[in-house]
Amino acid sequence: MLKRFGVAVEDDLLVQFDGLVASRGYANRSEAIRDLIRDALVQRAWQSGKQEAAGAVVLVYDHRKRDLQARLTDAQHDAHRHIISTMHAHLDHDNCMEVVLLRGRPKELNAIADSLLSVRGVKHGRMVSTTLGERLP
Amino acid sequence: MLKRFGVAVEDDLLVQFDGLVASRGYANRSEAIRDLIRDALVQRAWQSGKQEAAGAVVLVYDHRKRDLQARLTDAQHDAHRHIISTMHAHLDHDNCMEVVLLRGRPKELNAIADSLLSVRGVKHGRMVSTTLGERLP
Amino acid sequence: MLKRFGVAVEDDLLVQFDGLVASRGYANRSEAIRDLIRDALVQRAWQSGKQEAAGAVVLVYDHRKRDLQARLTDAQHDAHRHIISTMHAHLDHDNCMEVVLLRGRPKELNAIADSLLSVRGVKHGRMVSTTLGERLP
Amino acid sequence: MLKRFGVAVEDDLLVQFDGLVASRGYANRSEAIRDLIRDALVQRAWQSGKQEAAGAVVLVYDHRKRDLQARLTDAQHDAHRHIISTMHAHLDHDNCMEVVLLRGRPKELNAIADSLLSVRGVKHGRMVSTTLGERLP
Repeated sequence: MLKRFGVAVEDDLLVQFDGLVASRGYANRSEAIRDLIRDALVQRAWQSGKQEAAGAVVLVYDHRKRDLQARLTDAQHDAHRHIISTMHAHLDHDNCMEVVLLRGRPKELNAIADSLLSVRGVKHGRMVSTTLGERLP
Repeated sequence: MLKRFGVAVEDDLLVQFDGLVASRGYANRSEAIRDLIRDALVQRAWQSGKQEAAGAVVLVYDHRKRDLQARLTDAQHDAHRHIISTMHAHLDHDNCMEVVLLRGRPKELNAIADSLLSVRGVKHGRMVSTTLGERLP
Repeated sequence: MLKRFGVAVEDDLLVQFDGLVASRGYANRSEAIRDLIRDALVQRAWQSGKQEAAGAVVLVYDHRKRDLQARLTDAQHDAHRHIISTMHAHLDHDNCMEVVLLRGRPKELNAIADSLLSVRGVKHGRMVSTTLGERLP
Repeated sequence: MLKRFGVAVEDDLLVQFDGLVASRGYANRSEAIRDLIRDALVQRAWQSGKQEAAGAVVLVYDHRKRDLQARLTDAQHDAHRHIISTMHAHLDHDNCMEVVLLRGRPKELNAIADSLLSVRGVKHGRMVSTTLGERLP
């Protein structure tokens, strides 16, 4: 259920905020403010580390590197209880992009990300910290 | 082709670095140093904004929100020239996680990310900045 | 002048937001929302790079390193038009912390930060991106 | 004492790294690699949260806001055991920039930063996470 409350903002600041709301494509101020609130809550949940969260590790690698795919598969099987699914895309003849969706506690997800990013042949990668959404209307 | 060169590091610092190399699962120091170098280069490339890059937008949303999937699909079609592929996972009865892989200039990718993250009903999302890998051995 | 408008937020989300408002020590929701808005505007201003901004480079170094202070002073004099002031603190017998306040365009501030952080003997450092405040009520 | 070891890097990657070393103003590759290593160690120390660390909170505010300076002073006195020193700069007629140097465990420093950033009238602010330097040659 939506609840309505009043917010007081300096008029100059509101003009600039309306510019941001428009340039990002939000339908209205409430929608943008809800997103700012949810993002602050997700950051706090990751900082406290207590709740189960979601993450996505994005990897770019050269599939021709010897043993790389075997090693990535090994690392993923070690983490199979936390992996939701993976997606693979071919960037060019040599380079692949792979995304591994994860659920678990922040500490576990950080460790899995480290184990994937450190595989020899992975050129670059990073994890996005997000939420399972169940507690976040 | 691999090229070898010498690095001088304080012995105390080297002990701590070896701890980091081991805890992250790197095969050796060179592998870890190459990753640090590549990450610095990817950051610089995104900052300068001149090269084509890759990104992954991760979204968490409640698929039951009215018009949400239609709006996401619309936003994605507007960006179809930059979208490589997408993946969808069911987190629970209501919540979905979606990853959209992108290629293009940093500015274009930021704008596409904004247009996806601002869709009403998207609870949380973020973009990972990465590389197409072609210039990054 | 303050302007008042209504925001609609799911009741569950509002409960969590009120928890965040309280734990961070905000006087009320409006104050917290204004901060979220201003932070989003400062991030956008740094991304676009067009407005003059403020920054603070924080450096930790061992003052006994040969030529370090001369080199830092040189680098700062090269940037004197952008440096507002500096502060120095003694962390222990060997280690110092120095903060350099800067004003200028994001690109200039990034370059000055690089020139300070790369001085031999600087152990660690980072720049905070902030605002001159004049356009931000 | 400096220890020397060999690093193997793809020649193409080395060319790009040398470009980065030069553009950031490093004297040589070792210096740049030491900085990358130290930065990774500082990030890990903040993530684990166990060691005492250093931080700098940068605040921008309008000094004319009623009670602002009294409130900031109150918040700083509550944290006096962790505050090393503060610096104040006048940005223009109304706007001030203040830096508060802190030492303590990451969790304590985050809480102090929250208590300063949430003071009514503070327009923007952020904390930089750094190190006391004692364990970081």
